[in-house]
Amino acid sequence: MNESELKHFLAEITPVKTSWQEAVRRRWNTLAKPIGGLGRLEDMVAQLGAIQETVLPSVTKRAIIIMAGDHGVVEEGVTQTGQEVTRSVMENMMVTASSITPFAKTAHADVIPVDVGISSDLASDLVWKKKVRYGTGNIRRECAMSRQEAVQAISVGIKVIKKLKERGYQAAATGEMGIGNTTISSAICACLLDQPVEKVTGKGAGLSDAALEKKIQVIEDALDFHKPDKRDMLDILSKIGGLEVAGLIGCYLGAAYYKMAIIIDGFISSVAAYMALEMAPAVRDYLFASHCSDEPAGKQMLDALGLQAYFYANMRLGEGTGAAMCFSFMDYALAAYTGIPSFSEAEIEEYEEDL
Amino acid sequence: MNESELKHFLAEITPVKTSWQEAVRRRWNTLAKPIGGLGRLEDMVAQLGAIQETVLPSVTKRAIIIMAGDHGVVEEGVTQTGQEVTRSVMENMMVTASSITPFAKTAHADVIPVDVGISSDLASDLVWKKKVRYGTGNIRRECAMSRQEAVQAISVGIKVIKKLKERGYQAAATGEMGIGNTTISSAICACLLDQPVEKVTGKGAGLSDAALEKKIQVIEDALDFHKPDKRDMLDILSKIGGLEVAGLIGCYLGAAYYKMAIIIDGFISSVAAYMALEMAPAVRDYLFASHCSDEPAGKQMLDALGLQAYFYANMRLGEGTGAAMCFSFMDYALAAYTGIPSFSEAEIEEYEEDL
Repeated sequence: MNESELKHFLAEITPVKTSWQEAVRRRWNTLAKPIGGLGRLEDMVAQLGAIQETVLPSVTKRAIIIMAGDHGVVEEGVTQTGQEVTRSVMENMMVTASSITPFAKTAHADVIPVDVGISSDLASDLVWKKKVRYGTGNIRRECAMSRQEAVQAISVGIKVIKKLKERGYQAAATGEMGIGNTTISSAICACLLDQPVEKVTGKGAGLSDAALEKKIQVIEDALDFHKPDKRDMLDILSKIGGLEVAGLIGCYLGAAYYKMAIIIDGFISSVAAYMALEMAPAVRDYLFASHCSDEPAGKQMLDALGLQAYFYANMRLGEGTGAAMCFSFMDYALAAYTGIPSFSEAEIEEYEEDL
Repeated sequence: MNESELKHFLAEITPVKTSWQEAVRRRWNTLAKPIGGLGRLEDMVAQLGAIQETVLPSVTKRAIIIMAGDHGVVEEGVTQTGQEVTRSVMENMMVTASSITPFAKTAHADVIPVDVGISSDLASDLVWKKKVRYGTGNIRRECAMSRQEAVQAISVGIKVIKKLKERGYQAAATGEMGIGNTTISSAICACLLDQPVEKVTGKGAGLSDAALEKKIQVIEDALDFHKPDKRDMLDILSKIGGLEVAGLIGCYLGAAYYKMAIIIDGFISSVAAYMALEMAPAVRDYLFASHCSDEPAGKQMLDALGLQAYFYANMRLGEGTGAAMCFSFMDYALAAYTGIPSFSEAEIEEYEEDL
């Protein structure tokens, strides 16, 4: 995929048809419960119905996509661990276990780990090998990647969704792994939302106060050096982006194109989702927020996306852990939608909405 | 149980031992993830560990207790449906299906419907028959129940927990069913929190604006008529209470006494939990909030309880539907706690907390 092909792809992304949402709502209103009494669970099913173009949506076959990439900026000392941890975690994901493993098991979801730019080669055959390059450049003094590499990384995400769609997956949660990716995500967030860097930068996996100061300085230097154009997502990605962030953008674009429900995780995936919306605003119809990350700009990014978190757990682990949990919300919503009897089945007089 | 026996029971409720919480936290910190990175999921396991006095808590065997009672105040026209719906819903709960059925199935929880004061006799043998009286009096012009009946209804809740504990249950979610119970809960809430009635009263299952006005007037009349003593929970219950509210109070007290984790549902159960705390402050250690109800005073009650909701879904259905969903949070938290490898297993260098 090149830049002009991507442009054509974006032009074909369309909003969902609201007629399906209305059809789902009509069905909810026949059920023996107060009108609207299940609040956002009702909205969730309406949205799923509109995405899948059915009054009986299903998310039984589900994946958690983990986009992984490395970051040259790690050499500036903005993290506690080195880039080798990205590879270890991704290899553990399939072979032994990583943080996402128990979440995926509980959510009955398959983990799809994708190497879109880890800085070394992986031994595991179970990771989808889609490496665009071996990590990004150090954004403090060089470009993260070329524009064409950014397009290529986006197309990795699009292709992953296409493949999952072909394999019968009905919904995907997204996550990421990449030592250093809160640094570049805060840089992108500061640029997109015109925020001072210190307002949108946190301690990541647990930096000291002094290391946080340094992280903020590195981000400010990178923004001064590159002056990315906040209206041009490929400019941002190539100058201060991440390969896994680009891969995630591709997932959101692909989900909208191939009509698949897709769940955002925390701060980093929210940044990617926002960039996807900037490229194709109709993407919003296909997105589900999950939790509100404990990163300082977690809530700001969700507000900017116009999405509301379902839950608040002060999580900041990434890897799709929060997004995975959202599958359970969908399970409850769909179980209620198909399992609550109608007024006639329950032999209860209908509640009237006498407003 | 009489009032003095209840007093003795309350005196034996003690806080959890913080040493167990610390032991759980130490174990979390050996896992290959950022320190504290799972936020409130980590707190949740620490609390479960402290309640169960183990570093390896479990909530596999779980119940959703639905306390049901009727309300004489329904004759004032504060609801859309009559008292007969309370019985229908409770009978459906076990025989065909009600709203809680699909939630319980998804949460892998058993439903325990308890008749603590339905205004007629139930046909179903599956409902636990613990009726204290046939519905309450119309609080606008008479007492809801006697002080002794309030104690008796509380002891129903305590006994249900005792029975569940004997049967090996490890955690319980609470819910309620009772046409008219948002009316009496708003009355109690206004009294306990010194709030104007209109601030804490909502449309329940879907009243019109005019009917809401009437509901507010009825509550104001009841408060003027009875002038309940906000420091005396039995005075409040007997004057403006509900039998299912008293039953729920008993569940929270019982859970603290028998050391069982217990989950609050929405507005009505929050009111009951607050009353339980007023009777025995150590009860808080055993409580888990679930969602923030869409009833106007839902958030206020949680704040008053000093608890934070895990999720926000604008639900206002009751019957334990929100509380049931909290079991899934516990599932994720415990799966992570037992499933994330330790740093040594994962062969990853430990994150240092260099603060």
